[in-house]
Amino acid sequence: MSRAGASVWGVGTSEFGKQESLDARRLAWQATVEALDDAGLKASEVEAVFAGTVFGDPGVVTRSLQQIGLVEIPVVTIENACASGTSAFHEARAAVETSRYERVLAFGIETMTARFDGAISPIASDPEGAQGFAMPSIYGMSATRYRHEFGVTPEQMAAVAVKNRRHALGNPRAQHRKSVTVEQVLASRMVADPITLFQCCSIADAAAAAVVGPRGGSRAPDQEVAVRSSVLRSGRLWDHRAEKVWGWDIVADTAAEAYEAAGVGVGDIDVFEVHDAFTIGEIITTEALGMCELGAGGRLAESGHTALGGPQPVNPSGGLLSRGHPLGATGLAQIAEIVWQLRGAAGERQVPNARLGAVETMGGATAGIDGNACVVTVLEQGG
Amino acid sequence: MSRAGASVWGVGTSEFGKQESLDARRLAWQATVEALDDAGLKASEVEAVFAGTVFGDPGVVTRSLQQIGLVEIPVVTIENACASGTSAFHEARAAVETSRYERVLAFGIETMTARFDGAISPIASDPEGAQGFAMPSIYGMSATRYRHEFGVTPEQMAAVAVKNRRHALGNPRAQHRKSVTVEQVLASRMVADPITLFQCCSIADAAAAAVVGPRGGSRAPDQEVAVRSSVLRSGRLWDHRAEKVWGWDIVADTAAEAYEAAGVGVGDIDVFEVHDAFTIGEIITTEALGMCELGAGGRLAESGHTALGGPQPVNPSGGLLSRGHPLGATGLAQIAEIVWQLRGAAGERQVPNARLGAVETMGGATAGIDGNACVVTVLEQGG
Repeated sequence: MSRAGASVWGVGTSEFGKQESLDARRLAWQATVEALDDAGLKASEVEAVFAGTVFGDPGVVTRSLQQIGLVEIPVVTIENACASGTSAFHEARAAVETSRYERVLAFGIETMTARFDGAISPIASDPEGAQGFAMPSIYGMSATRYRHEFGVTPEQMAAVAVKNRRHALGNPRAQHRKSVTVEQVLASRMVADPITLFQCCSIADAAAAAVVGPRGGSRAPDQEVAVRSSVLRSGRLWDHRAEKVWGWDIVADTAAEAYEAAGVGVGDIDVFEVHDAFTIGEIITTEALGMCELGAGGRLAESGHTALGGPQPVNPSGGLLSRGHPLGATGLAQIAEIVWQLRGAAGERQVPNARLGAVETMGGATAGIDGNACVVTVLEQGG
Repeated sequence: MSRAGASVWGVGTSEFGKQESLDARRLAWQATVEALDDAGLKASEVEAVFAGTVFGDPGVVTRSLQQIGLVEIPVVTIENACASGTSAFHEARAAVETSRYERVLAFGIETMTARFDGAISPIASDPEGAQGFAMPSIYGMSATRYRHEFGVTPEQMAAVAVKNRRHALGNPRAQHRKSVTVEQVLASRMVADPITLFQCCSIADAAAAAVVGPRGGSRAPDQEVAVRSSVLRSGRLWDHRAEKVWGWDIVADTAAEAYEAAGVGVGDIDVFEVHDAFTIGEIITTEALGMCELGAGGRLAESGHTALGGPQPVNPSGGLLSRGHPLGATGLAQIAEIVWQLRGAAGERQVPNARLGAVETMGGATAGIDGNACVVTVLEQGG
């Protein structure tokens, strides 16, 4: 199977946060026009759209994009839980690699703050949803089990929030741009033991977009960022008695496949954006990505290894914990951050000399399966 | 761009109707196991899933498929309005044609009767939704405008319902399996003038599936049905003052592209499954598909041309008007019907010597655009 390489030609995002006065059209305009401008493309040059949204009304994507002139083309709207945005990117990149299209918009949108009051819950037809669990409860259970197995400390978990909030000081589009201390994180309101408020991402309203095309095909090839690999998987069968906590295996399986497809090892990667919906999530994810041994993620978080200034910064954007988590937009905001990093355009939060970056998103509740969807993408400087 | 041809290896559906006692898992089991058996495939041989659902809870697809063993593979869930099922098929077929995968499940599911009380409405953020329109009102306005322009009669509209209900007498899985007369159709309760109750499709609960792979690659190549072409488009900009009624142009544009890609003319096609959500929909669609001139669709319906026994039967399954319209499942039920027809396996409702068939689905409300998504697929007997 012969394949063309795909590159990201341009990216754009709205601000992230509680912005109820901006409807989906306004948010879509901000993200999409920025991405098209960045790619040097007119809307009429886009051949197809792959979009991600979870709670968006049916048709929200075509309605949001028609004002920009993105009409009469194929639009495929994807719901893949928290990985909806990166699933849209994954499909857009595949469409370019297989020569279906040459100029594809990957797009993600979610307007949540007018609809939800804080935490979202698994669906009522899931065992967890039927028992009244919200997402923080599921991560709280993960943290408790993980703590029992590996002894992660409250301070180690808090270290993730402290680091990501500090990173966000350099990100003008993040929802939370105030640094916090370990003491403040631990003293914040308990949400689902041992997870306190500052260890939870916020719901948000936002859109994000990326233009994908063949490598070297854009008007500014030196600004392109190459897609070295992208892998999408659903999880193994899983229940709460499993040896590893929920989400560990799906991330590990997906990452291993993505590294192999890219021909890289985890040690080659200079910068990561990962799914830190809750602090324990980043700890588990850094392990599953292979950055450290199983059980060592808490120590890794405290070590400075994953902080800006350390050898492998994780979530230089501030992550979901700071940026907020508008489900469909999240994955494309992660892609945008890594593109900016690999171009050396990330300003105050720039990782020096970043050449290889990885994005990881995982989503879905625990109803018998180790996650609905995980996407891991490896990106490289240059087209 | 060199491409492998794709074929449908197997199809399956649940029954269609009000079946609240069957949850998504039960419906998925019926459709998917039938499709896998029909294709001679084990679940473990499926490499990827593309699924369609509109109102399905987030994650409903992975939850429904895990019991069958469809885990650890990429699952992409698509919301493309009424064309969600055929959009999933469209993407599955593309994945095979571009050699991404060799054994792909296209799947559609919707459980509606426990959730909706009759008609569904455009979303509240649409101009039409905000004004309290339900879908029958939009089709009622189309019918009124169309009648003003072209003089379609109530009897011509009723003829569509009479024909499709008669067709469904041979379809044991249809929701409505009782014949009706023109008089009964016109005397049924007025829903949205001039559309009476028997001219509206019903909401329903169902699942449907198709296995897609390379041509000639299955264990029973003589049972394969080749995908000659599949085209997905979103609509042109449109408003209620437009010359043609809502949905006409998107279907015409999509069909023209699909015929050209297949190298066929409309006259070559022996059997159609089209989106008759309301009687006026089939009238407009047969015109837009090129079966007759603009404005002649009403006369076509009365002429017998589109009835079983006529030269080009439309909706031998009974269509949405008889089968019911569980949004995500509809498109794959249409695909299944054409596959059965082209294999000569449609029993009492068989179109004799059918060699070429076409499926058309169109969806989305009218908020400034002529439909969110339309898919037209041309299928041919033999792998």
